[in-house]
Amino acid sequence: MTRSTAQKTQYPEKAGKAHILSLPTENSRNDREPHSYERWLISKLMRMVGSPPVRFKLWNGDLIEPDHQVASYTLTLADPKALYTLVANPNLAFGDLYSAGRLKLEGDLTEFMETLYRSVHTARQQWPKWLATLWKTPNPRSSGIPEAKENIHHHYDLGNDFYRLWLDQAEMQYTCAYYEDADKTLEQAQQAKLEHVCRKLRLKPGMTVVEAGCGWGGLARYMARNYGVTVHAYNISREQLDYARAEARRQGLNKQITYVEDDYRNIQGQYDAFVSIGMLEHVGKENYSALSDLIKRSLKPHGLGLLHSIGRNRPMLMNTWIEKRIFPGAYPPSIGEFMHIFEHNDLSVLDVENLRLHYAQTLTHWMENFLKRQSEVSRMYDEHFTRAWRFYLAGSAAAFRAGSLQLFQVVFSHGDNNQLPQSRQDLYTFPATLEGL
Amino acid sequence: MTRSTAQKTQYPEKAGKAHILSLPTENSRNDREPHSYERWLISKLMRMVGSPPVRFKLWNGDLIEPDHQVASYTLTLADPKALYTLVANPNLAFGDLYSAGRLKLEGDLTEFMETLYRSVHTARQQWPKWLATLWKTPNPRSSGIPEAKENIHHHYDLGNDFYRLWLDQAEMQYTCAYYEDADKTLEQAQQAKLEHVCRKLRLKPGMTVVEAGCGWGGLARYMARNYGVTVHAYNISREQLDYARAEARRQGLNKQITYVEDDYRNIQGQYDAFVSIGMLEHVGKENYSALSDLIKRSLKPHGLGLLHSIGRNRPMLMNTWIEKRIFPGAYPPSIGEFMHIFEHNDLSVLDVENLRLHYAQTLTHWMENFLKRQSEVSRMYDEHFTRAWRFYLAGSAAAFRAGSLQLFQVVFSHGDNNQLPQSRQDLYTFPATLEGL
Repeated sequence: MTRSTAQKTQYPEKAGKAHILSLPTENSRNDREPHSYERWLISKLMRMVGSPPVRFKLWNGDLIEPDHQVASYTLTLADPKALYTLVANPNLAFGDLYSAGRLKLEGDLTEFMETLYRSVHTARQQWPKWLATLWKTPNPRSSGIPEAKENIHHHYDLGNDFYRLWLDQAEMQYTCAYYEDADKTLEQAQQAKLEHVCRKLRLKPGMTVVEAGCGWGGLARYMARNYGVTVHAYNISREQLDYARAEARRQGLNKQITYVEDDYRNIQGQYDAFVSIGMLEHVGKENYSALSDLIKRSLKPHGLGLLHSIGRNRPMLMNTWIEKRIFPGAYPPSIGEFMHIFEHNDLSVLDVENLRLHYAQTLTHWMENFLKRQSEVSRMYDEHFTRAWRFYLAGSAAAFRAGSLQLFQVVFSHGDNNQLPQSRQDLYTFPATLEGL
Repeated sequence: MTRSTAQKTQYPEKAGKAHILSLPTENSRNDREPHSYERWLISKLMRMVGSPPVRFKLWNGDLIEPDHQVASYTLTLADPKALYTLVANPNLAFGDLYSAGRLKLEGDLTEFMETLYRSVHTARQQWPKWLATLWKTPNPRSSGIPEAKENIHHHYDLGNDFYRLWLDQAEMQYTCAYYEDADKTLEQAQQAKLEHVCRKLRLKPGMTVVEAGCGWGGLARYMARNYGVTVHAYNISREQLDYARAEARRQGLNKQITYVEDDYRNIQGQYDAFVSIGMLEHVGKENYSALSDLIKRSLKPHGLGLLHSIGRNRPMLMNTWIEKRIFPGAYPPSIGEFMHIFEHNDLSVLDVENLRLHYAQTLTHWMENFLKRQSEVSRMYDEHFTRAWRFYLAGSAAAFRAGSLQLFQVVFSHGDNNQLPQSRQDLYTFPATLEGL
């Protein structure tokens, strides 16, 4: 982007999508007067996203106040092209421009994003067809075995040092925590999540467990250590597995745990429990029947399974920016789509718990940690990366708070298994949060 | 059926469905020798239903033993026509013949039915297409407003005196109870169910509740009495409502409860809680979107709702005999179909609990009561009615035990409601079963 040339851009009489995308050129000056149609475009954009309480500050310092309300947030556009990019494809451009520092926000980012999600949620019902088409969310990328590897490396192999900066210190869990009470810390809530999952699976010493997508292996170690089970834990992220194996050796658990570097689709054997925490988002709808077949054959007749996944209240594609920049191939299923995994093989859903607001709180705690360590992140990567991750964490917390994302924990069994827990009382006999954490 | 004429029936060379249905005529003798093709038909029938350990005793006393196993049950066929009726449409005929006393069982009826369900479940995968067509389950009858009235009268207006004989004495609840421990009585478990539902709805004094399909009104009275809420409870069964209103007056609760004689689709107003126990089975899939719209408009922004319904692990039509003879229009949804109600209006599923084995136990307790009082039932109706109800109760207990039926309790809220319970701990702080019951 250069400020040196003063080429003035004329708004064409018949502005098609191609024109909007190409206007103005890289050569336009970033301190020039905004055109009247640019002001019109901003007010139109604001109406299309449901008129949130946002003031725009343009590249030359001009302010555009929202209609009929006081602004709670100020968005600063660094250059004219940022405006056109934003209007053409806000789902993708907002994150990109924020990451590039060409769109800045005054006000709390998470709160702003929640306000925006809620207002778009209502406003989109009224969108004309051309706008719905222009702003359409693309399908997620494929999650075949080679693509899955690529997709997972993109995100999870960023480096253990990076994730260690802001995840819980005990087990580096990059999934929703379980806050028994609202005032629990991240460390407590992540440990309580492990305990809650073990209780839901009714683990007993000597049982065998298979885990699909084990991250840094914390759940497997918790189960082995506290429940005396043996675990086969699958993952395709090499760097996570190196860490997981080293930790298991350090804790003397390597006889009980086998960390397997392989795709979950290659799971072998039969187990008393099948568990998968935060992998289903990456599986892709087209693979749900195969996942169901896998569960059917890997779970012993009286075994229990648990799937923990981000989900939706209804079918909806992943946010464009997150899918393109952060989580390639991600698709959180609707609750109905999720159920296909069970219906496909007559598996019986025993218990569903929605932990939506727990994920919002988890993300808020991650964000607090991230903000404390962001200068280190910038040294490891750069400012652009830091801003992108800040935007991702805030946007995700906002999506859970606005009700656009859910977190479902589903417990299931084979359809003909009558050795089931009598009730769920046993999950709540003692606090899941350990003393002294 | 007459035993006087000795007309001999020849099995036609090309036996089509029409021939089977018309053979033999009413005039055939019931003590005649069975034909060899009748023996063949029985062994074929047994193989088609998965070779359960069943011996057949024919009308003349002949025994047909099962292949390669010892029989645990003996089925006695009273006449040749019973055999042909059974073979042509076993789903419907088994119950009809049992009710008519033309098919008798030695052995426990519930256990026999469970064995049969499990063996058919596996065997039906191998059925040739013509057989699957012949034994096809028909679609349920319509549940439009006039038909719903007719369907409900068919079953629920049998008479309060009848249901009082074998349901719990406290509230006459004709839905699944909640057994905190396996050794609880029916009275305890039905009271605990009411308590469990109230806890799931997080009722507080002064709240307003709307109930769709209130039966004899026990839940409404429990809520008003123990939680200090006001309830609008809808039902289209006049006889149930007369009882419900009299009870509410007797207990001094008539200021807190309005029992409305109307279809649930005519619910008016907005409430803190929406609850429906055992009505969804009668709603019909084609009405789920309308039910969803109704919930959307009747639930206040921070309200919680609960739907309690028989369901399935995958889409499947209701047992033919039950739909035709006991519950016209009944259709228990699969868990995925159930979720459509929520997805249709961005409602958020917070908690699903499957109480399948609790319903098996409830039915076992109902059956015990029914057997003690069946001479009274026969005096009120007749032997045919008594046998039909015995078959229905046993068959239903068996279907829950075999995993063919489920019982789902689903708690939900509006998608954008953030005033949600922190966890489910509060459901389990104290036993749901009251002391002294």
